[in-house]
Amino acid sequence: MMDTLHRITSDIKPLNTKVQAETAAYLDTLTKPPGSLGKLESLAIQLAGITGQMKPTLAKKSVVVMAGDHGVCEEGISAFPAEVTPQMVINFLNGGAAVNVLARQAGADVHCVDIGVATELNHEKLLSRNIGRGTANMVKGPAMTREEALQSLVTGAEVAAELVSQGTQLFVTGEMGIGNTTPSAAIFSVLSGRQPSEVVGRGTGVTDERLSHKIQVVEQAIQVNAPQAEDPIDVLAKVGGYEIGGLAGLILGAAAHGCPVLIDGFISSAAALVAKSICPEALSYMIASHVSHEQAHVLLLEELGLHPMLQMDMRLGEGTGGVLCLHLVEAACRIMSEMATFESAGISGGAV
Amino acid sequence: MMDTLHRITSDIKPLNTKVQAETAAYLDTLTKPPGSLGKLESLAIQLAGITGQMKPTLAKKSVVVMAGDHGVCEEGISAFPAEVTPQMVINFLNGGAAVNVLARQAGADVHCVDIGVATELNHEKLLSRNIGRGTANMVKGPAMTREEALQSLVTGAEVAAELVSQGTQLFVTGEMGIGNTTPSAAIFSVLSGRQPSEVVGRGTGVTDERLSHKIQVVEQAIQVNAPQAEDPIDVLAKVGGYEIGGLAGLILGAAAHGCPVLIDGFISSAAALVAKSICPEALSYMIASHVSHEQAHVLLLEELGLHPMLQMDMRLGEGTGGVLCLHLVEAACRIMSEMATFESAGISGGAV
Repeated sequence: MMDTLHRITSDIKPLNTKVQAETAAYLDTLTKPPGSLGKLESLAIQLAGITGQMKPTLAKKSVVVMAGDHGVCEEGISAFPAEVTPQMVINFLNGGAAVNVLARQAGADVHCVDIGVATELNHEKLLSRNIGRGTANMVKGPAMTREEALQSLVTGAEVAAELVSQGTQLFVTGEMGIGNTTPSAAIFSVLSGRQPSEVVGRGTGVTDERLSHKIQVVEQAIQVNAPQAEDPIDVLAKVGGYEIGGLAGLILGAAAHGCPVLIDGFISSAAALVAKSICPEALSYMIASHVSHEQAHVLLLEELGLHPMLQMDMRLGEGTGGVLCLHLVEAACRIMSEMATFESAGISGGAV
Repeated sequence: MMDTLHRITSDIKPLNTKVQAETAAYLDTLTKPPGSLGKLESLAIQLAGITGQMKPTLAKKSVVVMAGDHGVCEEGISAFPAEVTPQMVINFLNGGAAVNVLARQAGADVHCVDIGVATELNHEKLLSRNIGRGTANMVKGPAMTREEALQSLVTGAEVAAELVSQGTQLFVTGEMGIGNTTPSAAIFSVLSGRQPSEVVGRGTGVTDERLSHKIQVVEQAIQVNAPQAEDPIDVLAKVGGYEIGGLAGLILGAAAHGCPVLIDGFISSAAALVAKSICPEALSYMIASHVSHEQAHVLLLEELGLHPMLQMDMRLGEGTGGVLCLHLVEAACRIMSEMATFESAGISGGAV
């Protein structure tokens, strides 16, 4: 399993700096002050480096929603009951959730993966890759075995490979798992060295009282398991979750196949931090989407060194923030393909 | 002229609070934690209040680019020569500018209005509404007469009415005018009581040295003209510009016809502040789009009480930030129309 993971990460190549430089130079010939399109320009340069093309088309877009349950829900850290996880999976498969609506608008497909849901699910559209029926309660011991954590990473990478073989050129990370802001905060705390009180937020909307309890739960999970910060797979196993590992693997797999990945909210960003810790080069393939209402998301994006484009005060997950940014990726591509140059438009370009 | 303006502002009605309340209640039945779609939800409620419909469709979208020149360019406050204004107007009409590319992506029309360009322009697609061939240099006296300022407001409102009669349901403000961050900063300074040094920024990219000069120019223009903060038309006339008045009028006209307006960047926001100062109710029809790289834009949005959705570090104007938000407006509409409810999806909705 470790060998498989090494094979995947060794396929992640640095970006094409030659095409990036050509793209940056071309952007300065377009009819606008240099740099005035801000993040659309840096995105165009990043996409050129990833794809090796100055004017890429990223027509086939896939949102991958990884679903898993969390033993730590026993501790009462969520505003919703755990039964909502499988119910929402069915909602995704039937096309009624927010991410489905936004993906239809963006012309993207939604793929839902059961990687660790507690209930057995059957649906023709479901990608059934269940590794375990929910994690163990991390307050009492490791959430997963090391083998299961590795399996979640490899499974995520395999899903990426499958979708690439079906034509996917651009990924969006999404997730569903009642309770999963708690393991995400635990991962962030251990990998960044920040205190649990700094990184725990309200998730889908817990009260003040439950927030303090949630902080204690994260503290306890870290104390009981003593995850090793320098070993991201140990951290993922002890205080993570199946869908978080699956998303980290999806990111690594996408990068290994030369595909950009839009990173959704707090949980997706925790997965991105695991992926970056395993293979720093994977970061070059990540595009931050929104900064969520979850209080520590802004810190987590800083830790990653990523700059979000949207500030919508959203706190839903599912991939909703990521999918809302697909049109910005398309805008960056269109700017490169369709804008006039100073020369073609006969405009005085130089500064006075 | 003042009568015409009064007639327009008296048509601006408060939003429909009954439909807004129904929309807020309906949003809480959808399969997501209450409020978790953040600004998409507040946008859905605002659009319902504006249109009187819980599930509006805003299919016909128009970006209006008002173009004008500025006598204050004599003072050397811009990184680009004034001849770029008419050259860019031609670029808009030929479809080669950034706003054209982004509008095509969003399925919106671009309408370009010559409201105060210094050069005579002829093009079959140009809306020729020229009031003056560039403003006077506001450092030496008023930029416009009071009559011209009123004319610019009425002209903007008339353009809105024309486009509404052709089917437009949603507006985006855009502008082109070399030098126009300078009058925008002057307007913002006078109407907010902030010092010029707080509100003057780099525009399309002036150097440190030119930035201090630009601050002095704004200070001088205010000192020479003594615009009256309690009289927004006086402020617009003395330290404003034709396209800024045109956009303020467009916003008032859109609101009078019950249409929402996406406000682009710093110059558009200065126009929005003029519109709000003339008729406070117009604010209910405004939707902030992005916060631009222009340093004082964030303060100007605060002054307006508007919350931007995108943070792209853009500083181009033209309507580019506004048009990038059209898909977010559509997303808010689709959420209302297409999402499953807890009941329809059979999901446990209540908090535990």
